[in-house]
Amino acid sequence: MRILLIGAGGVGDAIAKIAARRDFFELCVVADFDPARAERTVAAIAERTGVESARRFIAAQIDASDADAVTALAREHGATHVMNAVEPSFVPTVFAGAFAAGADYLDMAMSLSAPHPTDPYAQTGVMLGEQQFAAHDEWESSGRLALVGMGVEPGLSDVFARYACDELFDTVDELGTRDGANLVVRDESGNEIFAPSFSIWTTIEECLNPPVIWESGRGWFTTPPFSEPEVFDFPDGIGEVECVNVEHEEVLLMPRWLDAQRVTFKYGLGAEFIGVLKTLHTLGLDSTAPIRVRSADGPVSVAPRDVVAAALPDPAGIGPIMTGKTCAGMYVTGTKDGAPRAVYLYHVSDNEWTMREYGTQCVVWQTALGPVVALELLAAGTWAGAGVLGPEAFAAGPFLDLMARPEADGGFGQPWGLREETPATT
Amino acid sequence: MRILLIGAGGVGDAIAKIAARRDFFELCVVADFDPARAERTVAAIAERTGVESARRFIAAQIDASDADAVTALAREHGATHVMNAVEPSFVPTVFAGAFAAGADYLDMAMSLSAPHPTDPYAQTGVMLGEQQFAAHDEWESSGRLALVGMGVEPGLSDVFARYACDELFDTVDELGTRDGANLVVRDESGNEIFAPSFSIWTTIEECLNPPVIWESGRGWFTTPPFSEPEVFDFPDGIGEVECVNVEHEEVLLMPRWLDAQRVTFKYGLGAEFIGVLKTLHTLGLDSTAPIRVRSADGPVSVAPRDVVAAALPDPAGIGPIMTGKTCAGMYVTGTKDGAPRAVYLYHVSDNEWTMREYGTQCVVWQTALGPVVALELLAAGTWAGAGVLGPEAFAAGPFLDLMARPEADGGFGQPWGLREETPATT
Repeated sequence: MRILLIGAGGVGDAIAKIAARRDFFELCVVADFDPARAERTVAAIAERTGVESARRFIAAQIDASDADAVTALAREHGATHVMNAVEPSFVPTVFAGAFAAGADYLDMAMSLSAPHPTDPYAQTGVMLGEQQFAAHDEWESSGRLALVGMGVEPGLSDVFARYACDELFDTVDELGTRDGANLVVRDESGNEIFAPSFSIWTTIEECLNPPVIWESGRGWFTTPPFSEPEVFDFPDGIGEVECVNVEHEEVLLMPRWLDAQRVTFKYGLGAEFIGVLKTLHTLGLDSTAPIRVRSADGPVSVAPRDVVAAALPDPAGIGPIMTGKTCAGMYVTGTKDGAPRAVYLYHVSDNEWTMREYGTQCVVWQTALGPVVALELLAAGTWAGAGVLGPEAFAAGPFLDLMARPEADGGFGQPWGLREETPATT
Repeated sequence: MRILLIGAGGVGDAIAKIAARRDFFELCVVADFDPARAERTVAAIAERTGVESARRFIAAQIDASDADAVTALAREHGATHVMNAVEPSFVPTVFAGAFAAGADYLDMAMSLSAPHPTDPYAQTGVMLGEQQFAAHDEWESSGRLALVGMGVEPGLSDVFARYACDELFDTVDELGTRDGANLVVRDESGNEIFAPSFSIWTTIEECLNPPVIWESGRGWFTTPPFSEPEVFDFPDGIGEVECVNVEHEEVLLMPRWLDAQRVTFKYGLGAEFIGVLKTLHTLGLDSTAPIRVRSADGPVSVAPRDVVAAALPDPAGIGPIMTGKTCAGMYVTGTKDGAPRAVYLYHVSDNEWTMREYGTQCVVWQTALGPVVALELLAAGTWAGAGVLGPEAFAAGPFLDLMARPEADGGFGQPWGLREETPATT
C-alpha cells in the first residue's frame, strides 16, 4: 500500500504518527499546503518512532483545492490510497483528484451540505456527502473504493452501529451517536481559557447548520440548531454533559446500510460553547462569505469564520496545556430476544496518554485512529469493496478486534467499552 | 468661525446636518478618508436644508492618521476650529495637527488608555486623555483652546455635572453618569437583530477596558469590567435597564474641575450585550492587534476588532429600522441646605423624531448635538478659554439655555429634564 496523506494539520499529523508504528504500507507521502508543516510531521516521526520507520514518509507540498494537483502528486508517487485529512471544504477536489489518479480514497468528513433555500429548519437541502454518493456508480464500475466518513465520528461510531445491529440487537429503535468530553485548557497562570480541541471552522459548520435526523418512513429532515437538548452521562469519569442535535455524517451514512427506526447525532457541547456559537451567529462571525475589512495594507477581503479560527489557539497545539478525556460512542436502543435493550458502545481517549505516547492531543488523536485501522484492514484485504461506501458497509468485528488487541499482539491496544443501559419502559 | 470637521461617519454627518440649520459659522469643511462619504453629507444638507446653507459646506479627503495632512487641510481652508469626529484612535494625530495649524480643537472622545501592566483591575495605567492633558501648558501658553470630551457623554453629561454643582447642591457625594436606551432594531421580516447603535469598535474599547472610578482621597482606580451592576430606571418610558461600570471620559474630566466625593460612569448595556462583549473577549475577537488570516488573495493581516465592526450593520445606517429612545444623563447625590438630595438631569433623544427631522438615528444625533451647541457658544464668545479643558470648565447655564430654547427663539429646541429622586437615607 502506498498512501498519499493530504493535510498535515492536527489529524493528518496524528494519522502519520499512528501509522509510523505499523508496517502494513511501504510509503506515506505527507502533503500540506504549507510544506514546513509536512516536514515537521516527518521529522517528529524520525524522532519518536525512529529513522527506519520515518524512511517510509516523504513530505510534499500540495494545494488541496486543485484536483489536478492531487492527481499529479498521487501519480508521481504511485499512490494506491489517498487519505484526505484536510477541511471538508476541500473534499470535492481531493475526491475527484484521487479518482482521476486511479487511487482508492478515504476521508473523515464528507462533502458539505447546503440548507434548504426556503425551509432550512425542517427540510434538507443539499445533504452531507450527497456530492460523493452521486459518484457511487462511477467508483463501483471502476472497481474502486471510496471509504467515506472513516474517522472517529463518523467512523468508529459507524463501526459500533454495524456491530450493534449485527451482534447485540434483533431490532433497533435508535442509533444515536453521543460525543462528550471533560477537557479543560489552561494558560500559563493556570486560568481556564477558551480553546476548542477541534477545528472551530468545522465545529461552526457542524453546529450552526440545521441538524439532520433520519426516521423510518419519514426519511431525512432537519430541525433548528441545538435542538432536543439531553444530558448524557459519559463513562470513565467524564460524567454528565449537555448534548444537542448537530448535523453529522453518521445520520446520512447509517440508514443506507443499517436497519433502525431513528438515527441521530448529539454532540456534548456544553452550555458555554453553545452560547459562544450562538453569539458568533448573531454577529455574523460564522459567515464564510468574505467581507471588506480595513487593514494596515488597505482594505482586504476575509471571511469572518476564518478570522475566528485564526484568533483562537491552534487546536493541534493545545495538547500540552489540556487535561481530561474525550469519549466517542454510540447509544443504541431496541430489542434482543424479545426484551428491550439499550447499550452505549464507546471509546475514550485520555489527553495525558496521547500526549505522552504520540505528542498529540486526544481529540485529534482519536480522530486519526480509525483511518489507520481501516487502512490496515484494506491493506490486508480483510475489508474490500467498490463504490462510495461508509464504514458500516464493512464487517465491524475485525475492526474492533484489531483496534482493541494489545500492541504486543499486533493490535492498536485501544480497548472499547460496552455499557449496558437501563432501557426506557415501553 | 471656519470649521474643519474631520470624519463624516454617523456622528460627523449629524454634526454637519445640525450645524446646517445654524448661522454662527461661515465655512465647514467636511473631510473623510472616503471622499464619497463626505460628499454624501454635503449633498444631504443641500437636499434637506437648502442650497443656500449647503454653500457653506465643502467635502474633502483626509487621512486622519496623518497629523501633517490635518495641518495642511486646516491651513488650506483657514480653519479656526478643528472638530474631531473620527474614532478615538486618531485623537493624537488630529489633536497635534490642529495645534500645528494654529486652530482651536474639539473632540467627543479622548486619547486612549492603556491598562496597568501588572494590576489592570485595580490600578490605572495610561488614563483616557492623559496624552492630551500633558499638552495643556503648551495649548494654554499659546492662548489656544482644546475643548475635549464635548459630545453627549462625555459632553452634555459634564455640563449637567457643572450645573448640579453650581446650582443644585451645596455638597456633592456622587457624580454618576447613567446612560440607557430601549432601542430595538428589526430586519425586513420584523425579527429583532443584533445591531449596536454606536460604533462597536468604540463600545468594545469602552466596555472591556478596566472601568475607572474616582474617589476623593483615593484618586483614580480601576475595577474588573462590568463591575457594580445596578438597575437604573430611565425616564420617558425607557424604564429599567441593567447598568455597569464602564471606562469613560467623564470620570477623568469631572474631578479636575468639580468637587465631589465619587465620580462614576455606568452604561445601560443590558444582559444580552454584556454577554456578547464577554464572548468577543473570550475568543480574542476584541483585539486590535493584527493577526494573519487566509484569504482568496493569500494571507492578510487584520485586527479581529475591525472584522467584528465590518461584519455588523453600519450604526449610521440602522436608523430606518430602529425604534425607541436613548437617554443620556447625570445622577447626582449630595446635600442642599443641609438636607440630602438626589437628582437625575437628562436628555432623551427619540429615533422617530431624529429620523424625521435629520435623517439620522438618535444615538449619533444626540452625540452630535453637544459639539454644535458648544461651537456656537465659542463663536459668540460666550464660552472662551485656553488650554486643554473639559466641558465642566465652562459655565453650564448658557449651554443648557441655548440647547433648550425653542428653535423659533434661536435655540436648538432640545429641552432637558430634571427628576428629583428620593435620596438614600444616610
